[in-house]
Amino acid sequence: MKIGVLGGDGYCGWATALYLSQQGHDVAILDSYVRRHWDFELGVQTLTPIQPMPPRLRAWERISGRRVEAFQGDITDYGVLASFLQTFRPDAVVHFAEQRSAPYSMIDREHAVSTQVNNVVGTLNLLFALRELLPDCHLVKLGTMGEYGTPNIDIEEGYITIEHNGRKDVMPYPKQPGSFYHLSKVHDSHNITFACRIWGLRATDLNQGVVYGTLTGETALDEALINRFDYDEVFGTVLNRFCAQAAIGHPLTVYGRGGQTRGYLDIRDTVRCVELACLHPAAPGEFRVFNQFTEQFSVLDIARLVESSAKKLGLRVEIDHIPDPRVESEEHYYNAKHSKLIELGLEPHLLSDSLLDSLINVAMKYRDRIDASLFMPRVNWRNTRNERRASAPPLERVAVRANGDGQRRGRKG
Amino acid sequence: MKIGVLGGDGYCGWATALYLSQQGHDVAILDSYVRRHWDFELGVQTLTPIQPMPPRLRAWERISGRRVEAFQGDITDYGVLASFLQTFRPDAVVHFAEQRSAPYSMIDREHAVSTQVNNVVGTLNLLFALRELLPDCHLVKLGTMGEYGTPNIDIEEGYITIEHNGRKDVMPYPKQPGSFYHLSKVHDSHNITFACRIWGLRATDLNQGVVYGTLTGETALDEALINRFDYDEVFGTVLNRFCAQAAIGHPLTVYGRGGQTRGYLDIRDTVRCVELACLHPAAPGEFRVFNQFTEQFSVLDIARLVESSAKKLGLRVEIDHIPDPRVESEEHYYNAKHSKLIELGLEPHLLSDSLLDSLINVAMKYRDRIDASLFMPRVNWRNTRNERRASAPPLERVAVRANGDGQRRGRKG
Repeated sequence: MKIGVLGGDGYCGWATALYLSQQGHDVAILDSYVRRHWDFELGVQTLTPIQPMPPRLRAWERISGRRVEAFQGDITDYGVLASFLQTFRPDAVVHFAEQRSAPYSMIDREHAVSTQVNNVVGTLNLLFALRELLPDCHLVKLGTMGEYGTPNIDIEEGYITIEHNGRKDVMPYPKQPGSFYHLSKVHDSHNITFACRIWGLRATDLNQGVVYGTLTGETALDEALINRFDYDEVFGTVLNRFCAQAAIGHPLTVYGRGGQTRGYLDIRDTVRCVELACLHPAAPGEFRVFNQFTEQFSVLDIARLVESSAKKLGLRVEIDHIPDPRVESEEHYYNAKHSKLIELGLEPHLLSDSLLDSLINVAMKYRDRIDASLFMPRVNWRNTRNERRASAPPLERVAVRANGDGQRRGRKG
Repeated sequence: MKIGVLGGDGYCGWATALYLSQQGHDVAILDSYVRRHWDFELGVQTLTPIQPMPPRLRAWERISGRRVEAFQGDITDYGVLASFLQTFRPDAVVHFAEQRSAPYSMIDREHAVSTQVNNVVGTLNLLFALRELLPDCHLVKLGTMGEYGTPNIDIEEGYITIEHNGRKDVMPYPKQPGSFYHLSKVHDSHNITFACRIWGLRATDLNQGVVYGTLTGETALDEALINRFDYDEVFGTVLNRFCAQAAIGHPLTVYGRGGQTRGYLDIRDTVRCVELACLHPAAPGEFRVFNQFTEQFSVLDIARLVESSAKKLGLRVEIDHIPDPRVESEEHYYNAKHSKLIELGLEPHLLSDSLLDSLINVAMKYRDRIDASLFMPRVNWRNTRNERRASAPPLERVAVRANGDGQRRGRKG
């Protein structure tokens, strides 16, 4: 089928675009490349040396014989989005094109506002564009398990039957998100629910857990296809960060007691879940919610798994508990349902020693690119103004860094 | 106490500002006057001839001996908002400063986006400003009963205890709003909940029903203090519109079967509820929700009450059922709790014959200002692009109208 991937240059988007192409789907990408800009803004970079889009796509065509077309543009610009949809006319549109970092949204007011405006306006534009141009196109939207928060009851997939004062109704599951980013996804979910109801659009919300891993069958084929591996405190996800820390002998930075429990999944399952959603579209008017993760772990569980694997590889690993920069429960009940994607055919890649080995090995391969100053959290939920990393180094030091091996000289002099 | 009223030039805001001033509170207003601009945009005007802010405030000072200061500015501009809060340093800030019309938000994509951005960004700015400048100031936020939608179970005040699979939790009441405007209020509620939790802010969300009436003890004191009376399809609320229709012998326009049931309240209760919330502030970190209405009616109930009152005044009234421009249930269960404000001391002004008489009399007094073309709905929820009223009349006719009594001549010639 024809599948448009909005945000196809990002961590999940790139892996998904290639996987869908490999499965024989006709894939086109729309991306503004703003994610790469945010790296520059923060003074961080992916551990893995990702290529710009044109060489990425040339490599993919050379290796696979398949062509993926990429369009540059921002979906907060309605004209750009409408033009993409009219040109490509997808059967399904997968929407990754949002600011997806909780810490980024918590830097300060400007980042909170820009995250919510970017995400809400992009999704509103998409809803209007689908209704106006492609009313039968299936919207596959990336949500997050973080929309639910950590309630003291089981988390269902999007809806819950409530009995109250002798009456009963199926209601949207109440949302208690934990950052301005997570809130933006909650806003999206409400907007999409409404659009499905009034306009008969078909949508699937994939409430995704924390994604780990970097290799998929496709991105592993060639160095030019390599995917992002973010390990910094703002865009890095926890397992990736722990592997990068283990690779250079840095203590694993567990926030608080580490009892924060979440759903996790391998990026190879992300790409398959998206395909399953596309292959089994929601009905017209249906807003369907799948919880997209395969296993639950606490942060401390994850740290111990990395510690154990790293030790087998001969690495010395310590676990540090540092003050939690987030406002969240460090111990809590957590039991989230996740059967709908399994019922559609997902065969999970559970977190294994071999995956951990592979991840740590990727981190070791690129260890020279690791900047250990990026590990420690600077964005504290309790502050309304957090120092942005890029503004931290004095101008002189930045100037020296730009001069090849000048960094060492700069430090000495 | 010192109370800042954001949006103090609007229908509820103006009445509230004067009432609070009359009660002896020190009141300051911040308003961008964009509500008046929206009237021009749509080619509509309030039935009652409202004055600009300076003569309003001069009249209030002359009559009451009390001074209310008004600042001009838009809360989506953080600098303006911060300056207002730093200058006035209120104990409580009442937040009416949002786009509050469901049909306005449903005109087209631009209006949906501008409504959500305006409301969400304004409220985000306010949360950041309170945390940074006045962390103990009590936020009294105007929400809407429309956030809940029409579930098949009783509607509670903000929270519901859910028992599920043998466990129990108190959760935010699930929201099923019915327009992009109502969605913006749901987004706000989630954002405020989060800010209270992470920053210890104190907030009360007043989920207000449909407000009717135009006179309060204060606005009735002088013609220069007169409040808005909106009767058009976009900003008019249903009871006010029916009274305007009755006053000129126009059929009452009931949408669909008219079984749409909502909570209603007299504007004299609006102002008292706001004061009660201010006098009994939420605790630090608390996000408190009050359902602010006094009675439930269906649209058809309201039409029949107006019909009956109008007939006693010798007016001929018919009830028309026209196709519902909204996507909503025309018959449904509705039972919403509203005891918390009563417990704080609210003594409701229930909808009475004398209130209806008074409202119809106001409409008759200003009947020459009624434009009957504004009654019929043009904004249909099912369309993504609705014709805006102001763009409807051909340019020539507008030009003729501008020429004094030229309207009649224009029609003949």
